[in-house]
Parts: sequence; structure tokens; C-alpha cells
Amino acid sequence: MSSENIPEIAVSSLSLSSAATIVDAALVLGRRSNFKPLTVAVLDAGGHLVAFKREDASGILRPQIAVGKAWGALGMRLGGRVLAQRAEAHPGFYNALNAVSEGRMVPVPGGVLVRGTDNAVIGAVGISGDIPDNDERCAIAGIEQAGLIADAG
Amino acid sequence: MSSENIPEIAVSSLSLSSAATIVDAALVLGRRSNFKPLTVAVLDAGGHLVAFKREDASGILRPQIAVGKAWGALGMRLGGRVLAQRAEAHPGFYNALNAVSEGRMVPVPGGVLVRGTDNAVIGAVGISGDIPDNDERCAIAGIEQAGLIADAG
Amino acid sequence: MSSENIPEIAVSSLSLSSAATIVDAALVLGRRSNFKPLTVAVLDAGGHLVAFKREDASGILRPQIAVGKAWGALGMRLGGRVLAQRAEAHPGFYNALNAVSEGRMVPVPGGVLVRGTDNAVIGAVGISGDIPDNDERCAIAGIEQAGLIADAG
Amino acid sequence: MSSENIPEIAVSSLSLSSAATIVDAALVLGRRSNFKPLTVAVLDAGGHLVAFKREDASGILRPQIAVGKAWGALGMRLGGRVLAQRAEAHPGFYNALNAVSEGRMVPVPGGVLVRGTDNAVIGAVGISGDIPDNDERCAIAGIEQAGLIADAG
Repeated sequence: MSSENIPEIAVSSLSLSSAATIVDAALVLGRRSNFKPLTVAVLDAGGHLVAFKREDASGILRPQIAVGKAWGALGMRLGGRVLAQRAEAHPGFYNALNAVSEGRMVPVPGGVLVRGTDNAVIGAVGISGDIPDNDERCAIAGIEQAGLIADAG
Repeated sequence: MSSENIPEIAVSSLSLSSAATIVDAALVLGRRSNFKPLTVAVLDAGGHLVAFKREDASGILRPQIAVGKAWGALGMRLGGRVLAQRAEAHPGFYNALNAVSEGRMVPVPGGVLVRGTDNAVIGAVGISGDIPDNDERCAIAGIEQAGLIADAG
Repeated sequence: MSSENIPEIAVSSLSLSSAATIVDAALVLGRRSNFKPLTVAVLDAGGHLVAFKREDASGILRPQIAVGKAWGALGMRLGGRVLAQRAEAHPGFYNALNAVSEGRMVPVPGGVLVRGTDNAVIGAVGISGDIPDNDERCAIAGIEQAGLIADAG
Repeated sequence: MSSENIPEIAVSSLSLSSAATIVDAALVLGRRSNFKPLTVAVLDAGGHLVAFKREDASGILRPQIAVGKAWGALGMRLGGRVLAQRAEAHPGFYNALNAVSEGRMVPVPGGVLVRGTDNAVIGAVGISGDIPDNDERCAIAGIEQAGLIADAG
């Protein structure tokens, strides 16, 4: 079979350059807003860490929470805001998801899908430290600063 | 002891050929019904994967959810529809099952037992991606296409 | 910052259509060659399962081995043939990799990277069942049948 | 007991500012030296991630390897170079350490302790991607750029 016959899906993907921009822009907003110390994680579409910063005096579980917000969004292809509503409506199912994901997902606002300019999901951002709404605002600001599309659910 | 004296249990078993038919027929219905991207897993009676397909743009936790629906059905010998009712009625017990199964079960519709023509359980199908009722419809359609008996619980 | 300023990486990605072609073509070669029952797993670039078939009478650890061959190749961006040589030369390091990957990697021939027509890694194939050289031949045949580039290391 | 009587240990600690400098300086050397794509992790003295970057086309196991090099150094308070020698001399013990650490340690050069100006251990850097000697050179360069003391073992 020749390669012309094969449907390949061309998608943009998340570069380190974009991920680093997201992290730094999110933290700029956090400091300017006087939010509590934030931890910011950016994952690629496969759920693997690309860039990460944890501000001084941020608790030692914050890395797992920030990564878990991003990972959960990728796991279900839904932003943390929708995941949180569904987890509240279907606690049994979300308990099962906690287990089946081996503790990798945190269904709370602050997990935001990153879409490329072609709208494909190319990664996710998770932020933890202040209240979920503020975490989410920083994630969205970071993604937009990188010229990408934020999908908070 | 001669082999005539040994009680043998004659059961049908799930062939790759049947499992592949189930996967493809389930996906045909999903596409024809314009359901969201689906992930389909078929396990044998021992809970081990036989055939699997994940449609493009299906989240990265979908494999574990689809496998977990099928595994949970085999774990309790009950279809996902009954498991879901019991999980709602007995959340403490089902939280314990999440743990004791090491995160292998997802008690939700879309997990369907496969019975052979002699009614013995020979495997299970798990589908995840659309709402549970639609996932389950595709699982049943796939099993019936393979000439086997679907037991959704 | 406008999106023109952002380096996006456009890569091809592995569709279910291509993955299914790989699985079926690998099994055609296995049957034609009279190899032992094979288990074939195709993962996307993030290490998540896309398509899978296990032939009748293939052992119950075969799924983990096939997935582990593919996952290990993605983990190090090296085909299983190179991984196997390195594991033999550096047993301590590869014992650590077994642990750090939580048992997800199997550094043996039969794990083959899949590259798109732009040469980017878009996934990996793992096959287990016959001797590693034969497993690998089937993986390469499957990838080439799909019009993609096999990188066995 | 008044607080004057309590022995306090005054130590410097690793700020995000220093950790970010380490990551970026390590990657500058890697790019200038044309090394393979690198993954860089900086942990605090408690073994928790502070800053992290993974260059494009770095394998999906690289995060765990980079973190594991740094974590292993903190685990034994020994740089990766010494850990590697000991792991080779005492494979049984180091296999046990792989298990007892739950897969958190990778005893290989490229894991480097970070000491403050008072010589106290305040964190560790782990780098993975090129050969271990080159990984380690980048870690040392990063630490020195931050005005801290590198202890490679």
C-alpha cells in the first residue's frame, strides 16, 4: 500500500518553548494578583511533563495536584471545570476513575486543555496553590500568552 | 486416574476472531450513530486483553476505563448496569473493590459479559467514550454480531 | 504575543486506521510464516494503546510484554534491538529503568518505533510470542504495510 | 522550654529562582554542545520537584530518569557518580534500593547534589538524554551558574 493511501493526521504539538512561556506567564499573573504560592505543570498530549515550576513555600503535594489536574483533563478530554461538576454528580464513577488512573487525576478547576491553532488537543496545564478559580485564571492567561487556545471545560 | 474419570468442564472460549468481530461491529454502530470517539476492549474469561481499538481523539484514560468496565464485569460476574446500581447503593463496599482490585474495575454501564452458546461466561466487553447507555448499546451490538450472548446485567 | 511568533511543531500522528493496518499485516506475516501465536500492540507517541490483538493460545503475560516492548522503545526513543544491547552492557542501569518505569519497559527486539513520513516518532509497535527476531520482522512488516517508517534500533 | 534553648539548624534552602537558573543554564550548555535533547529536573532537599524542562523529542521515560537521578542522590546523600560505582559493586543491594524506593532512584552520573554556600545539601539536579558524562557536565554548569556548589559524588 503506498503512503498516499494512508490517512495521516497532521497536528500541531506542544514545544518546550511554548510550555515555558505558559509557565512563566501564569506565574507573572499569580504574583501581580498576589495569589498564594503556585505550582504550575504543563504536560504534552500524552500526559508527560514538559515544563514545571513550584514557587517557594508551596506544599510538597502541590506537584502531584498540579500534574493531576492537567492529567485528568487529558484523561477525559475535558477541562477541570467540567470534570469537577461531573465528579460531584457521579461520585462513584469518579472514585473508580481515581483508582483506575492510579491516583493520576484531580478533577478540579485549574486543569485546562491546551489546543493548537488547528484546535487539536496538544497538552494541558495544571495549577495548584490558590483557590481553584484563581489557579484556572493563571492557566488560561499562560496559554493565551503562548498564542494557543485554552479550553477550561 | 484415567482421564475418563476426571470431571472436565467443557466450555466454549472467546477466539480472537470473535473478539475482533465484536470490536469492529461496535465501532460501526458508533460511527453510524455519530457517537463521540470510542475505545473498545474485549477481554477473555481470565480478564486478559484479546482485542482493542481506540478511535482518534479519545482521551488517554479511555483505555483503562474501557478495560476496567470489562474487568469489573468479570470480577463480579455481573454486567456494568447492575454493578452501577450496586455501587450507588453500597459506596463503601465499592470503594473497597476499587482498592482491592488495584484500580482494575469501573462499575458503569458499558461493561457487558459475553456468554457462549452454552451460556458460559467466556469474556467481557468494555466501551468508553460516549454516555454509558450508548457505550453499552455498541457493546451489545458487537457481541450479537459475533453470534454470542450479551449479558449487560 | 501573536501566534505567528510561537514555534509550533507540526507532526503527523498515528491514526487508528494506520494502527489497525499494522496489527493485521503483522499477523498475516506471522500466520504465513507459521510463527507461534503472537500478541501485537500499537501505542501512540504518548505510550497509550491504540490497537491490539492477541492470537488464540498466547500466554496471559503476552499483553504486558508486547506493550512493554513498545513502551520501552518510546521511553528511550530507541528500538528494542538497541535497548537489548544496552541492557546487556549496563544491567544495573536497566534494572533501575525497570523500577523507575514501574515495570513498563521490556528492552528486547520486537519493540519498533513508528516514524511518520516527516520522520517524527508517532508511536511504537510491540510484538511477543515467537523468538524476538521473528517478532521484530512482523512489526516491521506491519509498519511498512501502513506506509510508515519502521525504526527497530 | 523557651525557643532560645531549642537547637535550630539554620540552612540555606533552594529557591525557585535558583532552580530556574540551574535548568536554563544546563540547557544552554546542552544546546551549545549539540548534545541530544535533554530533560532537566531540580528537586529540593525533601526530594520534591521545584523546576523542570524537557526538550522536544526527548523520550517519555526521561522525566522519571531525570527525577530518579536527583532523587537517588538525595536518597543516599551521594552524587550519581559514586552511586553508579556502588551499584556496580553491590548489585543485590541496589536492586533492593530500586524496590524499597518504589522505583524512585536511578544510580547513574547526571544526578548531582546541590550544596548551599554553608555546604548543606539543599537539593539535587538530575539530567537525562545524552551520555551520563555529558548529562553531568550540564548539571554542574547549571549549579555553578546559580552560585551554588555542585557535588557529583
